[in-house]
Amino acid sequence: MNAKIRLYVEQGLGQGQTVPLSRDQAHYLFGVMRLAPGASVLLFNGSDGEWRAEVLEAGKRGGILRCEVQTRALQMPPDLWLLFAPIKKARTDFIVEKAAEMGAAKILPVLTDFTNAARVQRERLQAHAIEAAEQCGGTYVPQVAEARKLGRMLDGWDPARRILFCDETLAGEASGLGALLQERRGHGEPWAILIGPEGGFSDAERARLRGLDHAHAVTLGPRILRADTAAVAALALWQQGLGDWA
Amino acid sequence: MNAKIRLYVEQGLGQGQTVPLSRDQAHYLFGVMRLAPGASVLLFNGSDGEWRAEVLEAGKRGGILRCEVQTRALQMPPDLWLLFAPIKKARTDFIVEKAAEMGAAKILPVLTDFTNAARVQRERLQAHAIEAAEQCGGTYVPQVAEARKLGRMLDGWDPARRILFCDETLAGEASGLGALLQERRGHGEPWAILIGPEGGFSDAERARLRGLDHAHAVTLGPRILRADTAAVAALALWQQGLGDWA
Repeated sequence: MNAKIRLYVEQGLGQGQTVPLSRDQAHYLFGVMRLAPGASVLLFNGSDGEWRAEVLEAGKRGGILRCEVQTRALQMPPDLWLLFAPIKKARTDFIVEKAAEMGAAKILPVLTDFTNAARVQRERLQAHAIEAAEQCGGTYVPQVAEARKLGRMLDGWDPARRILFCDETLAGEASGLGALLQERRGHGEPWAILIGPEGGFSDAERARLRGLDHAHAVTLGPRILRADTAAVAALALWQQGLGDWA
Repeated sequence: MNAKIRLYVEQGLGQGQTVPLSRDQAHYLFGVMRLAPGASVLLFNGSDGEWRAEVLEAGKRGGILRCEVQTRALQMPPDLWLLFAPIKKARTDFIVEKAAEMGAAKILPVLTDFTNAARVQRERLQAHAIEAAEQCGGTYVPQVAEARKLGRMLDGWDPARRILFCDETLAGEASGLGALLQERRGHGEPWAILIGPEGGFSDAERARLRGLDHAHAVTLGPRILRADTAAVAALALWQQGLGDWA
């Protein structure tokens, strides 16, 4: 049987390992997808790669799978964080989904001076990241951090991790992004991409970021991009220039 | 008064030109945004740049604006088309919005062998492109074409327009995209980015595309991207490599 269903689980995976299912997982596999004992599923847990598993027991409230063979080794994304200011719910969900697909290692919501967002529901965003990883064939799920204030985050920042921040006040000027990516190639440094809220950074935030040696202001073309568009575009350029796309 | 509202209109724009408003436009400006005579609005029509206009008459069913001063010249995007296979409604809307923000000159829905989409509503997609242009500060609105079969489109293709197509069967292999963009830099050629449906191209389509001298198969990293993600990522890399971002 062709195993097309990919499921993220929290248990360890390995040859012959049995995996008990939660009620939700059992409902999905046996109620929604109608799998019967003997069917195959692909499992990953973010640390043991991807395994083809066979359904041993299928019930309404649970079930058991058994790992048969590893189908993919664990593939870690580059050490790239995505920091973004939460926006409207649908677009925040979208940014998290895209960050997982594009291969960010960690997703950090940041509260900036102009951030206008209700409480960030970390658990819901984490579930979106898991779903995106299930969909895109990834073997790794980026962790979604608790939302923190940008200022506090910069207070404790390790200067070894460079920051690429998109400054829309530069729109229309030469971006310098191509040259920057070329210059840093081969250095193997950890990075973070920082996407501001609609309305941009405050003057104080912009001044602080500009004063950091490890932060680089860039533009993404002559049009003003929505935050979700800017996130995907910046991730694509970074992955192609310094990440695992090249 | 600070003119923040941007409105796309179909009339010609120029010094002293008066612009009559449709019922919908009047409702938006005077009913929703509560503008009164004397207020300022930014107008663009895709060909005369952006103009600051003053409200002369404000009514429930109509109104009149008058162009005062040109605030931005027309900025055409590069000659880049985005061809994409329509997917679920929300993601199709999203692709059109993103193509407009990212600076595609024309948006062409294509029906491929594996395209599974209801009727493509061209008018609705065109309205999304207009809204995105209003939002992103663009002075140009990409035209959304009627959906056509990929095979017919390739039958009449001008070979001077190169095609970048994303072939997910290559995922994990070297992409060659960076080298391709570098090689074609400075040639000033028209291009098209072709994004396939979920499930990819059929073998016949892939074979045909691979046989075209003007078509280039590339990959976008080791993970499988959703069509909407792939569209934004490919547009970003093209704009940075060959378009108006560099």
